[in-house]
Amino acid sequence: MDSLESKKEILLSEIQKSEFIKYLDLEFVEMTEECVVGRIPYTSKFLNPYGTMHGGLLYSLADTVAGSLACLAGQMCTTVDGHLSYLSPAANTQYVYCKAVRIKNGRQMVYVRVEIYGDDGKIFDDGSFNYFKMQ
Amino acid sequence: MDSLESKKEILLSEIQKSEFIKYLDLEFVEMTEECVVGRIPYTSKFLNPYGTMHGGLLYSLADTVAGSLACLAGQMCTTVDGHLSYLSPAANTQYVYCKAVRIKNGRQMVYVRVEIYGDDGKIFDDGSFNYFKMQ
Amino acid sequence: MDSLESKKEILLSEIQKSEFIKYLDLEFVEMTEECVVGRIPYTSKFLNPYGTMHGGLLYSLADTVAGSLACLAGQMCTTVDGHLSYLSPAANTQYVYCKAVRIKNGRQMVYVRVEIYGDDGKIFDDGSFNYFKMQ
Amino acid sequence: MDSLESKKEILLSEIQKSEFIKYLDLEFVEMTEECVVGRIPYTSKFLNPYGTMHGGLLYSLADTVAGSLACLAGQMCTTVDGHLSYLSPAANTQYVYCKAVRIKNGRQMVYVRVEIYGDDGKIFDDGSFNYFKMQ
Repeated sequence: MDSLESKKEILLSEIQKSEFIKYLDLEFVEMTEECVVGRIPYTSKFLNPYGTMHGGLLYSLADTVAGSLACLAGQMCTTVDGHLSYLSPAANTQYVYCKAVRIKNGRQMVYVRVEIYGDDGKIFDDGSFNYFKMQ
Repeated sequence: MDSLESKKEILLSEIQKSEFIKYLDLEFVEMTEECVVGRIPYTSKFLNPYGTMHGGLLYSLADTVAGSLACLAGQMCTTVDGHLSYLSPAANTQYVYCKAVRIKNGRQMVYVRVEIYGDDGKIFDDGSFNYFKMQ
Repeated sequence: MDSLESKKEILLSEIQKSEFIKYLDLEFVEMTEECVVGRIPYTSKFLNPYGTMHGGLLYSLADTVAGSLACLAGQMCTTVDGHLSYLSPAANTQYVYCKAVRIKNGRQMVYVRVEIYGDDGKIFDDGSFNYFKMQ
Repeated sequence: MDSLESKKEILLSEIQKSEFIKYLDLEFVEMTEECVVGRIPYTSKFLNPYGTMHGGLLYSLADTVAGSLACLAGQMCTTVDGHLSYLSPAANTQYVYCKAVRIKNGRQMVYVRVEIYGDDGKIFDDGSFNYFKMQ
């Protein structure tokens, strides 16, 4: 079992411990050391009062996918801060995807950029997260 | 019924339409035109794999409380962007509180600053949100 | 003269009115409706006390390049907010480049992502800006 | 000479090394371990093409004042990220003030909140900065 495979297994088993992540119904679509893509179903339990996906839920998707990517750098990570810009309401899609790309993997900090989009690639949100490696 | 009371009623009834906000078990503790305080219970369903409150859940609390404040300006509002800095893990508390303070109520934009803290006032997170008034 | 050329001329003439932008010694390297690249020289007048480029100066470069891109959408624009993450000290380069890419051109808001890098493409900073179209 | 006085002296001497900070004409109005207030004159050299203070200049003021506060925690500090929301154009004032308040002084990170305002206290901008302590 190579190192990335071993880290993935640890990550997926860690994630099972969180009831909130289970609530998200998150599935991973792609997972490398530089990029993780995850998706959640577009369902009524995630909607805001206007009938589109709640901004906090979209951010939760982003933080979970980006944090998983940060953890693949080999350590436990804690979120330093997160920033999300809402470009179009998330609606009219079967799944909502989040692609997290690692821009920097420093000695103590990991910086990740995220994009959230629908089935047809339409961008809903764009943002970034900083993580601190706990040692 | 004065104007603020009427806006509160509309807001609370709007919020009931969102399954995700119901999931948060959000209670409002204070509600004026300049400041809204809300709280959620610290329970296992909100935790991350490390056993403290999930960063996305904390952000969801903040966006919902800050967005409620923005809507009291009298209109439907949409989140332009949100930013949250994580200062201490949210743990060892019965409730997690979010205080949202309106710093600017412009013609089209509302800017709100948020603080998240525990029963004893210890600050967990600090951030800000921009909302756009939909007309 | 096509429409983009006419907008560029207006933009470059507007920019001459700002003493601060002149101080930056900004040159445009590329300018389309979706992407603007600008660069400034790496000189002693831009350094912080540690001898690398000042974070505020880097942000000023980013806001000016991103704002120019936003204005090419055809209107005067005002910055709603800006966010910059510092990944590596800006040093050991003859020029510092900023590439601004328009992610959303909405009815009232323009969202732009920026990257700052050196001669060899090494990324120094990454961030985003929201602009509001003034009408 | 007490410890804060000694740190102030080192800070003020460090700042003299930066040509960009000298360009800002920054004066400190208040300096404690929890709060630093600085101000710059409102002059034509800092204006954007619209005749109000350039957003990058305002951010530079904020980063310099907030960074000075972070350094008073006793170490060299590097900016992790900065975020500034623009609420009203900075104009009609003799000085532009920035008040930086330390919200968290952790083992490795310092989190600072900033407000920028005019002579009469009118808020122009609001934001926050994360610093990393270099050891």
